[in-house]
Amino acid sequence: MLRSPLIARAAFVAIGLSAGPALADEGLWTFDNFPAAAVKAKYGVTIDQAWLDRVQHATIGLSTGCSASVVSSEGLVLTNHHCILDCAQSLSTPQQDYIKWGFIAANRREERLCPGLQAEILVSITDVTEGIGDDAGQSATNFAKTRDAAITAIEQEACNGKTAILRCQVVTLYHGGQYELYTYRKYSDVRLVFAPELATAFFGGDPDNFNFPRYDLECSFVRLYENGQPVKTPEHLRWSAAAPTDGEPVFVAGDPSPTQRAETADQLSFIRNIQLPQTLLRYSELRGRLIRFSEESPEQARVAADRLFSIENGYKARYGQLLALNEPGLIEGRREADLELKAKVDANPKLKAIVGNPWSEIAQAENAYGDIYAAYELLENNPAKGSDLYGWARTLVRSAAERQKPHSERLPGFSDGGLPLLEKGVTDAKPVDPKLEQLELEFWLSKAREYLTVDAPQTKLMLGKEIPEELSARLASSRLIDPAYRKQLWDGGQAAVDASDDPLIRYVVATDRAARAVRKSYEEQVAGPVERAQARLAKARFAVYGTSVAPDATSTPRLSYGKIAGWTVHDQPVPPFTYFKGLYERATGQPPFQLAERWIDAKPKLNPNTVLDISSTADIIPGNSGSPLINAKGEVIGAIFDGNRFMLSGFFAYDSRFRGVSVSTAAITEALEKVYLDPELVEELRAQ
Amino acid sequence: MLRSPLIARAAFVAIGLSAGPALADEGLWTFDNFPAAAVKAKYGVTIDQAWLDRVQHATIGLSTGCSASVVSSEGLVLTNHHCILDCAQSLSTPQQDYIKWGFIAANRREERLCPGLQAEILVSITDVTEGIGDDAGQSATNFAKTRDAAITAIEQEACNGKTAILRCQVVTLYHGGQYELYTYRKYSDVRLVFAPELATAFFGGDPDNFNFPRYDLECSFVRLYENGQPVKTPEHLRWSAAAPTDGEPVFVAGDPSPTQRAETADQLSFIRNIQLPQTLLRYSELRGRLIRFSEESPEQARVAADRLFSIENGYKARYGQLLALNEPGLIEGRREADLELKAKVDANPKLKAIVGNPWSEIAQAENAYGDIYAAYELLENNPAKGSDLYGWARTLVRSAAERQKPHSERLPGFSDGGLPLLEKGVTDAKPVDPKLEQLELEFWLSKAREYLTVDAPQTKLMLGKEIPEELSARLASSRLIDPAYRKQLWDGGQAAVDASDDPLIRYVVATDRAARAVRKSYEEQVAGPVERAQARLAKARFAVYGTSVAPDATSTPRLSYGKIAGWTVHDQPVPPFTYFKGLYERATGQPPFQLAERWIDAKPKLNPNTVLDISSTADIIPGNSGSPLINAKGEVIGAIFDGNRFMLSGFFAYDSRFRGVSVSTAAITEALEKVYLDPELVEELRAQ
Repeated sequence: MLRSPLIARAAFVAIGLSAGPALADEGLWTFDNFPAAAVKAKYGVTIDQAWLDRVQHATIGLSTGCSASVVSSEGLVLTNHHCILDCAQSLSTPQQDYIKWGFIAANRREERLCPGLQAEILVSITDVTEGIGDDAGQSATNFAKTRDAAITAIEQEACNGKTAILRCQVVTLYHGGQYELYTYRKYSDVRLVFAPELATAFFGGDPDNFNFPRYDLECSFVRLYENGQPVKTPEHLRWSAAAPTDGEPVFVAGDPSPTQRAETADQLSFIRNIQLPQTLLRYSELRGRLIRFSEESPEQARVAADRLFSIENGYKARYGQLLALNEPGLIEGRREADLELKAKVDANPKLKAIVGNPWSEIAQAENAYGDIYAAYELLENNPAKGSDLYGWARTLVRSAAERQKPHSERLPGFSDGGLPLLEKGVTDAKPVDPKLEQLELEFWLSKAREYLTVDAPQTKLMLGKEIPEELSARLASSRLIDPAYRKQLWDGGQAAVDASDDPLIRYVVATDRAARAVRKSYEEQVAGPVERAQARLAKARFAVYGTSVAPDATSTPRLSYGKIAGWTVHDQPVPPFTYFKGLYERATGQPPFQLAERWIDAKPKLNPNTVLDISSTADIIPGNSGSPLINAKGEVIGAIFDGNRFMLSGFFAYDSRFRGVSVSTAAITEALEKVYLDPELVEELRAQ
Repeated sequence: MLRSPLIARAAFVAIGLSAGPALADEGLWTFDNFPAAAVKAKYGVTIDQAWLDRVQHATIGLSTGCSASVVSSEGLVLTNHHCILDCAQSLSTPQQDYIKWGFIAANRREERLCPGLQAEILVSITDVTEGIGDDAGQSATNFAKTRDAAITAIEQEACNGKTAILRCQVVTLYHGGQYELYTYRKYSDVRLVFAPELATAFFGGDPDNFNFPRYDLECSFVRLYENGQPVKTPEHLRWSAAAPTDGEPVFVAGDPSPTQRAETADQLSFIRNIQLPQTLLRYSELRGRLIRFSEESPEQARVAADRLFSIENGYKARYGQLLALNEPGLIEGRREADLELKAKVDANPKLKAIVGNPWSEIAQAENAYGDIYAAYELLENNPAKGSDLYGWARTLVRSAAERQKPHSERLPGFSDGGLPLLEKGVTDAKPVDPKLEQLELEFWLSKAREYLTVDAPQTKLMLGKEIPEELSARLASSRLIDPAYRKQLWDGGQAAVDASDDPLIRYVVATDRAARAVRKSYEEQVAGPVERAQARLAKARFAVYGTSVAPDATSTPRLSYGKIAGWTVHDQPVPPFTYFKGLYERATGQPPFQLAERWIDAKPKLNPNTVLDISSTADIIPGNSGSPLINAKGEVIGAIFDGNRFMLSGFFAYDSRFRGVSVSTAAITEALEKVYLDPELVEELRAQ
């Protein structure tokens, strides 16, 4: 599944430009630089500005790391089921489990707020490259500081006084070759409308994940609200209840996660040798703990469901990335491309004077990164990642401090534009299970001790005289479980934080200085040097290869194109469509291949030849979960939810075996009519 | 800790010869080729044949993958605590936990049989290279068959009629450059004499594992019995209760696990890209499941203790190997060495005619290995590795079939020489926890489904219509928990297996054909071609570099040399000794840094300056756990139990930062006298 695994990822975002010309249907294009001529030449269809505008204005980025699309004039939004899994989990109780049984709002009054969920639509793009300045002659630290100050100033000015409904973001494209100001209309009241059972949305479970053929009704609907009313959305995508045909051109819009297609061989080596092994190994152990936790009781299984999905999904995505990087030739090929570009730069004295030797600067920075990677991940970048309580404590402690500073000195995410979402995340009511929290905290603390080593000052600070098993239990007893207390601390700011005797607040305060110190090392030794080097690398690439390829993805709105196409597994052709009949054939009666009761009951009524899931070639990457699959007429015909395993190679390079997987609108329509018996929703979708 | 992680490893054993001349104190030497002249030159000490004979005849290989030494004339054996952890676990009950409280036999009658444990002493070595023949002109399959038949014939003839007390093994040295017949005297009645508390033996636990300084009394004593009486062992090592001095030359004898120092770059790449990631990720998830299982109740913690140690230890050892292989230059350096040797072969037409191109044959075989690796591991090589019940079922099913075949057609391990240990392993009484068995079986089945994929015929065979969660519970209900039933099946052979309706016996029977098919693919596509290529590579190395370096280790007796030496961590010198006082300073009162009660009580009586643990440079590798650390006089001064993290690089190359870690006999003596109050044992040790 393609929910972005990188929500909590900090500033070290990889942004770039492929070395050579774009391959096949490669390219996660920005809306203001879509290669309509290439599409016309290849597929014979015309994509005009009106088409682009409509798709841009109907495409949504969700704060859960997913994409979505507006599909009615009353703010109805199509996304994936796994994009609202956290919401369904939060709305559920031991008595009413919406993950297990699904959620169908009988009417608008029953549509329910998803805690912490925000939706954004990109409304305008402005090139601001000139306003950012140039890096020539600056130190890495100064380069990052100057650039960040310029970015903050542009964002502040653009959104001044409008941060309640707008968010302004300067997006770094081509690893610093281009900067664009993106302005988003944001919606903070997003309510759950419809979700099928997990067994239906995620039929085949982890074993079938990242594969095709698939048989998943991987969809959900939410609705945008403002002032208690559904938002009017005239620029929505039209709903097509008809399935596409094999070979038909298709388009995908959404917020793909950062890709590394233009990173150097040393950057990819770092990912392969350090980042992925450490992450995968931690995920794997946590997965084992969560599986056993879930087996201890049905109630524990219920509260851990979203977290276990998230870990298993993130694990499998990263494992695919490791396989891709271990493919013979991938890193070696990148090194050859590095050397080729370097030779061209070196042969051009004027270019050489501007570009210098960013490759060796990056290599040096990656070396430094290796030394601090575990500390940066465990203490600063992803501390106690699965613990809601810890996340809230850190946001409260840090926002109290950051809000007192001028904008230019704040940590990323704490600008005035970012504060509303932080506040919403902290103060929205969301149930928390203390036993699960304790498990997450214990795991985190034990891994910190393991990776940083027992005698490291950071470990001693984190553990003191306690052990992970006991310290975690103490921290999990935090009063932050109460949203009213969180609200009180948010509103009270620094004084309230100082006065709090909550164990988790005190813990985060006590360790925050060390965490900030690791961030500083990271920024000075890694991010600054790498970003400065990348900006010069972008100049080299522009000079040598031009601008005809798409920039690396950056979790910002993109549009890609391709066609409906199957693929080949073990020399056997796999057709591009699956059908309802295939779902019934694959069902074994045992999870994860078990049909929900209502699907067994509805079988006689369903057309067995309805297209269920679709395979296509358009470029995607995790973060595209929920993205509309769009036909040439601009109608939504599906929602991307996954890809095959070669899609995961797409972080590093597009591959001809690359396929994305969507659930079809045809299947959704038929299921709403005949399985979920929701004629109002179907009527709303069909009303164009 | 250095218990061999490779006990269950099948025939694909890496054996070889380093490319260049031996570095520093590198070399796991055979007893018949010890470089006494080099030792004399470097350390000024004379190692004569009498010294070598005495050490060889006092060195023991344990069937738990450990080493040990005879230290009294009455069969008393020194080894590590983690080498008898499984035994202590088996002898414990909920009421009497020997892992937690230690085990001290008050007298010989209280010494207790360790289930399944066997000890062996190498009594003679004969070169049989000529009897094995040559591979010229044979197919890979024929090469392996001819060689294996010759080996079996030599082993059968040498041990004919004496398999009750002897084991004959043809050892492949230098990857097929040399074959030697090793004859062992074996002892099947090995009884536990003394074990400290786990908290004392493994003070610092997993966080301190594979590091130095250390503070572990990592020892235990067992005794060899025959006909109900302690074995007379006049050729024992003399016990020194005095600690060595910094820089003093030392020697280590034992059974180091297979090393890969002479494998090609493609073999190392396979280990890095496929073998280690898959193994580490599975270990990591299992670790998570076992940790949570252990937290569910004290009794579950008790029954899972040995297994959790084994997984954490194996995990950390392999993680160190991955770090070593990811060190910049290691694999690249090996590739350069491969190319250098190849160039020398290619320049010599006569040699070229004999050697051919083994590098490309190995590369091709490793490619094929990648395709079947997961199936081979999960179905044949290490199926349900942690389940005793499964292990017994497989041994019973396979031995029933194999015993009916002529020797030359049996699977490895099922020769007449191997049967007694198999029988002992199956029929010795050993407690089994059905809940832990279910966990292990569920984990194994779920990983088989994950790695082989849902739709693979092997997965369908393994799971049928069941799911791992339920099938594992059914299999864990096996009657094999009863040793009398196991004895009945062993004695009853094929007829008894055929008649058994035990679910696990039936399951192993139903899946055995598929497992054997994977073994056949592995032998034909991987092991055969690799071994034939390695044999020719050995010829190339002998021709080009001579025979002055040690062969790769092969889990057979070896002797290494070096000196007492500290090392350097973060530019700080680490002295080669730790002392009792350091143990008390490091104790926090919390596990894994918690002192046993009797150590707290004994503190005033102990000499705080007693040397506890020792760092030395002599070459070791996992499998050397329990190995005697010997001084130039041939006295035992410690027992190897661990190494620093660079020791783990030693699988692939010796490194100047390489250190082994021993517990000192000085500390053992002092602890037996003043903490464990066992004067009889001390008297026996001191009586020389």
